[in-house]
Amino acid sequence: MTLARQLGEALARHHLMMVTAESCTGGGIACALTDIAGSSAWFDRGFVTYSNAAKSEMLGVAPTLIEREGAVSEAVVAAMAKGACARSGADLAVAVSGVAGPGGGGPDKPVGTVWLACYLAPADLLRCRRLQLGGDRLAVRRQTVNTALQDCLALLAEQHT
Amino acid sequence: MTLARQLGEALARHHLMMVTAESCTGGGIACALTDIAGSSAWFDRGFVTYSNAAKSEMLGVAPTLIEREGAVSEAVVAAMAKGACARSGADLAVAVSGVAGPGGGGPDKPVGTVWLACYLAPADLLRCRRLQLGGDRLAVRRQTVNTALQDCLALLAEQHT
Repeated sequence: MTLARQLGEALARHHLMMVTAESCTGGGIACALTDIAGSSAWFDRGFVTYSNAAKSEMLGVAPTLIEREGAVSEAVVAAMAKGACARSGADLAVAVSGVAGPGGGGPDKPVGTVWLACYLAPADLLRCRRLQLGGDRLAVRRQTVNTALQDCLALLAEQHT
Repeated sequence: MTLARQLGEALARHHLMMVTAESCTGGGIACALTDIAGSSAWFDRGFVTYSNAAKSEMLGVAPTLIEREGAVSEAVVAAMAKGACARSGADLAVAVSGVAGPGGGGPDKPVGTVWLACYLAPADLLRCRRLQLGGDRLAVRRQTVNTALQDCLALLAEQHT
Protein backbone atom coordinates (compact mmCIF):
# COMPACT_ATOMS: atom_id res chain seq x y z
CA MET A 1 0.00 0.00 0.00
CA THR A 2 1.32 3.45 -0.83
CA LEU A 3 2.20 5.89 1.94
CA ALA A 4 -0.56 8.26 0.74
CA ARG A 5 -3.15 5.48 1.04
CA GLN A 6 -1.88 4.50 4.50
CA LEU A 7 -2.10 8.12 5.63
CA GLY A 8 -5.59 8.50 4.16
CA GLU A 9 -6.78 5.41 6.03
CA ALA A 10 -5.27 6.68 9.30
CA LEU A 11 -6.93 10.09 8.85
CA ALA A 12 -10.29 8.50 8.06
CA ARG A 13 -10.00 6.17 11.06
CA HIS A 14 -9.43 9.12 13.40
CA HIS A 15 -11.93 11.43 11.63
CA LEU A 16 -9.26 14.02 10.86
CA MET A 17 -8.95 16.45 7.94
CA MET A 18 -5.56 17.42 6.60
CA VAL A 19 -4.03 20.21 4.55
CA THR A 20 -0.64 20.86 2.94
CA ALA A 21 1.62 23.91 2.84
CA GLU A 22 4.31 23.40 0.23
CA SER A 23 7.17 25.42 -1.11
CA CYS A 24 9.90 23.23 -2.70
CA THR A 25 7.56 20.34 -3.57
CA GLY A 26 5.21 22.72 -5.38
CA GLY A 27 2.03 20.71 -4.87
CA GLY A 28 3.58 17.25 -5.00
CA ILE A 29 2.35 16.25 -1.54
CA ALA A 30 -1.22 17.39 -2.30
CA CYS A 31 -1.03 15.59 -5.65
CA ALA A 32 0.11 12.33 -4.02
CA LEU A 33 -2.73 12.54 -1.48
CA THR A 34 -5.43 13.31 -4.04
CA ASP A 35 -4.25 10.46 -6.27
CA ILE A 36 -6.23 8.36 -3.78
CA ALA A 37 -9.91 7.93 -4.70
CA GLY A 38 -12.14 9.25 -1.93
CA SER A 39 -9.47 11.62 -0.60
CA SER A 40 -12.03 14.41 -0.25
CA ALA A 41 -13.14 12.66 2.97
CA TRP A 42 -9.84 13.59 4.65
CA PHE A 43 -8.04 16.13 2.41
CA ASP A 44 -9.42 19.68 2.49
CA ARG A 45 -7.01 21.94 0.60
CA GLY A 46 -3.41 22.71 -0.25
CA PHE A 47 -1.42 25.94 -0.12
CA VAL A 48 1.37 25.98 -2.70
CA THR A 49 3.30 28.93 -1.30
CA TYR A 50 6.18 29.11 -3.74
CA SER A 51 7.03 32.81 -3.30
CA ASN A 52 7.71 34.47 0.04
CA ALA A 53 4.71 36.78 -0.53
CA ALA A 54 2.53 33.67 -0.87
CA LYS A 55 3.81 32.30 2.46
CA SER A 56 2.81 35.55 4.16
CA GLU A 57 -0.48 36.20 2.35
CA MET A 58 -1.83 32.64 2.27
CA LEU A 59 -0.52 31.36 5.60
CA GLY A 60 0.13 34.45 7.70
CA VAL A 61 3.88 33.87 8.02
CA ALA A 62 5.40 37.19 9.15
CA PRO A 63 7.64 38.73 6.45
CA THR A 64 10.11 39.73 9.19
CA LEU A 65 10.38 36.06 10.24
CA ILE A 66 11.19 35.02 6.66
CA GLU A 67 13.72 37.83 6.39
CA ARG A 68 15.42 36.96 9.68
CA GLU A 69 15.40 33.13 9.51
CA GLY A 70 15.27 32.54 5.76
CA ALA A 71 12.44 30.78 3.91
CA VAL A 72 14.19 27.43 4.47
CA SER A 73 14.16 27.32 8.27
CA GLU A 74 12.51 25.61 11.21
CA ALA A 75 10.69 28.78 12.26
CA VAL A 76 9.17 29.28 8.82
CA VAL A 77 7.93 25.70 8.27
CA ALA A 78 6.48 25.72 11.81
CA ALA A 79 4.62 28.95 11.01
CA MET A 80 3.48 27.54 7.66
CA ALA A 81 2.05 24.40 9.27
CA LYS A 82 0.28 26.30 12.06
CA GLY A 83 -0.98 28.90 9.57
CA ALA A 84 -2.35 26.18 7.29
CA CYS A 85 -4.42 24.71 10.14
CA ALA A 86 -5.55 28.15 11.32
CA ARG A 87 -6.61 29.28 7.85
CA SER A 88 -8.50 26.09 7.02
CA GLY A 89 -9.75 24.68 10.29
CA ALA A 90 -8.05 21.38 9.44
CA ASP A 91 -6.65 19.08 12.11
CA LEU A 92 -3.32 18.10 10.55
CA ALA A 93 -0.94 20.12 8.38
CA VAL A 94 2.37 19.26 6.80
CA ALA A 95 4.68 22.04 5.61
CA VAL A 96 7.91 21.87 3.61
CA SER A 97 10.44 24.43 2.45
CA GLY A 98 13.78 23.52 0.93
CA VAL A 99 16.44 24.00 -1.69
CA ALA A 100 15.50 21.61 -4.52
CA GLY A 101 18.24 22.92 -6.79
CA PRO A 102 20.09 23.02 -9.03
CA GLY A 103 20.52 26.67 -8.01
CA GLY A 104 19.75 28.43 -4.72
CA GLY A 105 22.14 26.52 -2.45
CA GLY A 106 24.63 28.15 -0.09
CA PRO A 107 27.25 27.05 2.45
CA ASP A 108 24.72 26.81 5.31
CA LYS A 109 21.89 25.42 3.20
CA PRO A 110 23.26 23.43 0.27
CA VAL A 111 21.02 21.92 -2.41
CA GLY A 112 19.00 19.11 -0.78
CA THR A 113 18.41 20.99 2.50
CA VAL A 114 14.72 20.73 3.41
CA TRP A 115 12.84 21.75 6.56
CA LEU A 116 9.69 19.78 7.25
CA ALA A 117 6.97 20.42 9.88
CA CYS A 118 3.93 18.38 10.90
CA TYR A 119 1.32 19.99 13.14
CA LEU A 120 -1.64 18.27 14.77
CA ALA A 121 -3.85 21.16 15.85
CA PRO A 122 -6.24 19.45 18.32
CA ALA A 123 -3.26 18.26 20.39
CA ASP A 124 -1.10 21.36 19.64
CA LEU A 125 1.62 18.88 18.69
CA LEU A 126 4.40 20.15 16.42
CA ARG A 127 7.28 18.11 14.99
CA CYS A 128 9.96 19.72 12.82
CA ARG A 129 13.11 18.32 11.32
CA ARG A 130 15.81 19.17 8.84
CA LEU A 131 16.55 16.79 5.97
CA GLN A 132 19.70 16.67 3.88
CA LEU A 133 18.76 14.89 0.68
CA GLY A 134 20.90 13.71 -2.21
CA GLY A 135 20.28 13.56 -5.92
CA ASP A 136 18.95 16.03 -8.45
CA ARG A 137 15.94 18.36 -8.27
CA LEU A 138 13.39 15.65 -9.01
CA ALA A 139 14.99 13.24 -6.52
CA VAL A 140 14.99 15.90 -3.77
CA ARG A 141 11.34 16.68 -4.43
CA ARG A 142 10.30 13.02 -4.56
CA GLN A 143 12.12 12.17 -1.32
CA THR A 144 10.59 15.22 0.37
CA VAL A 145 7.07 14.10 -0.59
CA ASN A 146 7.68 10.59 0.78
CA THR A 147 9.27 11.83 4.00
CA ALA A 148 6.40 14.28 4.55
CA LEU A 149 3.86 11.46 4.28
CA GLN A 150 5.92 9.24 6.60
CA ASP A 151 6.23 12.00 9.20
CA CYS A 152 2.48 12.63 9.17
CA LEU A 153 1.89 8.91 9.75
CA ALA A 154 4.44 8.94 12.60
CA LEU A 155 2.79 11.94 14.24
CA LEU A 156 -0.63 10.27 14.10
CA ALA A 157 0.85 7.07 15.53
CA GLU A 158 2.51 9.04 18.33
CA GLN A 159 -0.78 10.70 19.24
CA HIS A 160 -3.00 7.65 18.92
CA THR A 161 -1.10 4.86 20.66
CA MET B 1 10.69 20.02 -24.58
CA THR B 2 7.92 19.40 -22.02
CA LEU B 3 4.76 21.51 -22.06
CA ALA B 4 5.64 22.90 -18.62
CA ARG B 5 9.03 24.07 -19.87
CA GLN B 6 7.48 25.62 -22.99
CA LEU B 7 4.97 27.48 -20.85
CA GLY B 8 7.68 28.66 -18.46
CA GLU B 9 9.72 30.03 -21.34
CA ALA B 10 6.69 31.83 -22.79
CA LEU B 11 5.88 33.38 -19.39
CA ALA B 12 9.49 34.48 -18.88
CA ARG B 13 9.62 35.96 -22.38
CA HIS B 14 6.52 38.08 -21.71
CA HIS B 15 7.46 38.88 -18.07
CA LEU B 16 4.30 37.27 -16.71
CA MET B 17 3.67 35.50 -13.39
CA MET B 18 1.23 32.62 -13.19
CA VAL B 19 -0.81 30.84 -10.54
CA THR B 20 -2.95 27.70 -10.43
CA ALA B 21 -6.38 26.96 -8.95
CA GLU B 22 -6.95 23.22 -8.87
CA SER B 23 -9.67 20.93 -7.70
CA CYS B 24 -9.61 17.53 -9.44
CA THR B 25 -5.87 17.63 -10.25
CA GLY B 26 -5.06 18.33 -6.59
CA GLY B 27 -1.81 20.20 -7.19
CA GLY B 28 -0.68 18.27 -10.27
CA ILE B 29 -0.48 21.37 -12.48
CA ALA B 30 1.54 23.32 -9.88
CA CYS B 31 3.78 20.27 -9.42
CA ALA B 32 4.42 19.96 -13.19
CA LEU B 33 5.30 23.66 -13.38
CA THR B 34 7.63 23.63 -10.38
CA ASP B 35 9.43 20.54 -11.70
CA ILE B 36 11.17 23.10 -13.92
CA ALA B 37 14.31 24.61 -12.37
CA GLY B 38 14.01 28.39 -12.11
CA SER B 39 10.21 28.28 -12.06
CA SER B 40 10.11 30.83 -9.21
CA ALA B 41 10.74 33.48 -11.90
CA TRP B 42 7.28 32.91 -13.39
CA PHE B 43 5.29 30.75 -10.89
CA ASP B 44 4.00 32.52 -7.80
CA ARG B 45 1.64 30.17 -5.95
CA GLY B 46 -1.02 27.50 -6.26
CA PHE B 47 -4.43 27.13 -4.67
CA VAL B 48 -5.43 23.48 -4.23
CA THR B 49 -9.11 24.06 -3.54
CA TYR B 50 -10.28 20.51 -3.09
CA SER B 51 -13.34 21.21 -0.92
CA ASN B 52 -16.08 23.68 -1.78
CA ALA B 53 -15.23 25.68 1.35
CA ALA B 54 -11.67 26.04 0.04
CA LYS B 55 -12.95 27.36 -3.30
CA SER B 56 -14.91 30.06 -1.47
CA GLU B 57 -12.38 30.91 1.25
CA MET B 58 -9.20 30.81 -0.84
CA LEU B 59 -10.54 32.17 -4.14
CA GLY B 60 -13.70 34.08 -3.26
CA VAL B 61 -16.05 31.83 -5.25
CA ALA B 62 -19.57 32.56 -3.98
CA PRO B 63 -21.07 29.55 -2.16
CA THR B 64 -24.40 30.30 -3.87
CA LEU B 65 -22.71 29.99 -7.27
CA ILE B 66 -21.28 26.58 -6.36
CA GLU B 67 -24.69 25.49 -5.05
CA ARG B 68 -26.53 26.68 -8.17
CA GLU B 69 -24.10 25.62 -10.91
CA GLY B 70 -22.23 22.77 -9.21
CA ALA B 71 -18.51 22.72 -8.44
CA VAL B 72 -17.83 21.21 -11.89
CA SER B 73 -19.16 24.04 -14.08
CA GLU B 74 -18.05 26.82 -16.38
CA ALA B 75 -19.15 29.53 -13.94
CA VAL B 76 -17.14 28.03 -11.07
CA VAL B 77 -13.86 27.52 -12.97
CA ALA B 78 -14.17 31.04 -14.39
CA ALA B 79 -14.61 32.42 -10.86
CA MET B 80 -11.70 30.27 -9.61
CA ALA B 81 -9.35 31.60 -12.31
CA LYS B 82 -10.35 35.23 -11.80
CA GLY B 83 -10.18 34.82 -8.03
CA ALA B 84 -6.71 33.30 -8.25
CA CYS B 85 -5.41 36.34 -10.17
CA ALA B 86 -7.20 38.78 -7.85
CA ARG B 87 -5.90 37.13 -4.67
CA SER B 88 -2.29 36.90 -5.88
CA GLY B 89 -1.76 39.78 -8.28
CA ALA B 90 -0.57 37.26 -10.90
CA ASP B 91 -1.11 37.81 -14.63
CA LEU B 92 -2.21 34.33 -15.70
CA ALA B 93 -4.31 31.74 -13.89
CA VAL B 94 -5.47 28.29 -14.87
CA ALA B 95 -8.36 26.66 -13.00
CA VAL B 96 -9.72 23.12 -13.22
CA SER B 97 -12.64 21.30 -11.61
CA GLY B 98 -13.80 17.89 -12.69
CA VAL B 99 -14.96 14.39 -11.88
CA ALA B 100 -11.77 12.30 -11.74
CA GLY B 101 -13.62 9.21 -10.53
CA PRO B 102 -14.11 6.45 -9.88
CA GLY B 103 -17.07 7.85 -7.89
CA GLY B 104 -18.86 11.17 -8.12
CA GLY B 105 -20.17 10.91 -11.66
CA GLY B 106 -23.78 11.52 -12.71
CA PRO B 107 -25.87 11.51 -15.91
CA ASP B 108 -25.01 15.16 -16.76
CA LYS B 109 -21.41 15.00 -15.55
CA PRO B 110 -20.03 11.48 -15.91
CA VAL B 111 -16.55 10.51 -14.72
CA GLY B 112 -14.03 12.29 -16.95
CA THR B 113 -16.00 15.54 -17.18
CA VAL B 114 -13.65 18.45 -16.50
CA TRP B 115 -14.16 22.21 -16.77
CA LEU B 116 -11.01 24.21 -17.46
CA ALA B 117 -10.52 28.01 -17.44
CA CYS B 118 -7.53 30.17 -18.38
CA TYR B 119 -7.56 33.84 -17.47
CA LEU B 120 -5.06 36.48 -18.56
CA ALA B 121 -5.73 39.35 -16.19
CA PRO B 122 -3.94 42.26 -17.92
CA ALA B 123 -6.03 41.66 -21.08
CA ASP B 124 -9.15 40.52 -19.18
CA LEU B 125 -9.14 37.51 -21.50
CA LEU B 126 -11.00 34.41 -20.31
CA ARG B 127 -11.18 31.06 -22.11
CA CYS B 128 -13.22 28.16 -20.69
CA ARG B 129 -13.94 24.74 -22.06
CA ARG B 130 -15.42 21.43 -21.07
CA LEU B 131 -13.39 18.27 -21.54
CA GLN B 132 -14.71 14.72 -21.64
CA LEU B 133 -11.77 12.47 -20.84
CA GLY B 134 -11.44 8.69 -20.91
CA GLY B 135 -9.55 6.29 -18.70
CA ASP B 136 -9.23 5.86 -14.97
CA ARG B 137 -8.67 8.45 -12.21
CA LEU B 138 -4.94 8.81 -12.87
CA ALA B 139 -5.49 9.08 -16.64
CA VAL B 140 -8.16 11.75 -16.18
CA ARG B 141 -5.89 13.73 -13.88
CA ARG B 142 -2.84 13.40 -16.15
CA GLN B 143 -4.77 14.48 -19.27
CA THR B 144 -6.24 17.42 -17.36
CA VAL B 145 -2.76 18.63 -16.35
CA ASN B 146 -1.51 18.40 -19.94
CA THR B 147 -4.56 20.11 -21.41
CA ALA B 148 -4.32 22.91 -18.83
CA LEU B 149 -0.71 23.59 -19.82
CA GLN B 150 -1.62 23.50 -23.54
CA ASP B 151 -4.52 25.91 -23.04
CA CYS B 152 -2.30 28.37 -21.15
CA LEU B 153 0.19 28.26 -24.03
CA ALA B 154 -2.64 28.80 -26.53
CA LEU B 155 -3.97 31.78 -24.61
CA LEU B 156 -0.53 33.40 -24.49
CA ALA B 157 -0.09 32.76 -28.22
CA GLU B 158 -3.50 34.29 -28.93
CA GLN B 159 -2.60 37.42 -26.99
CA HIS B 160 0.97 37.81 -28.23
CA THR B 161 0.78 37.26 -31.99
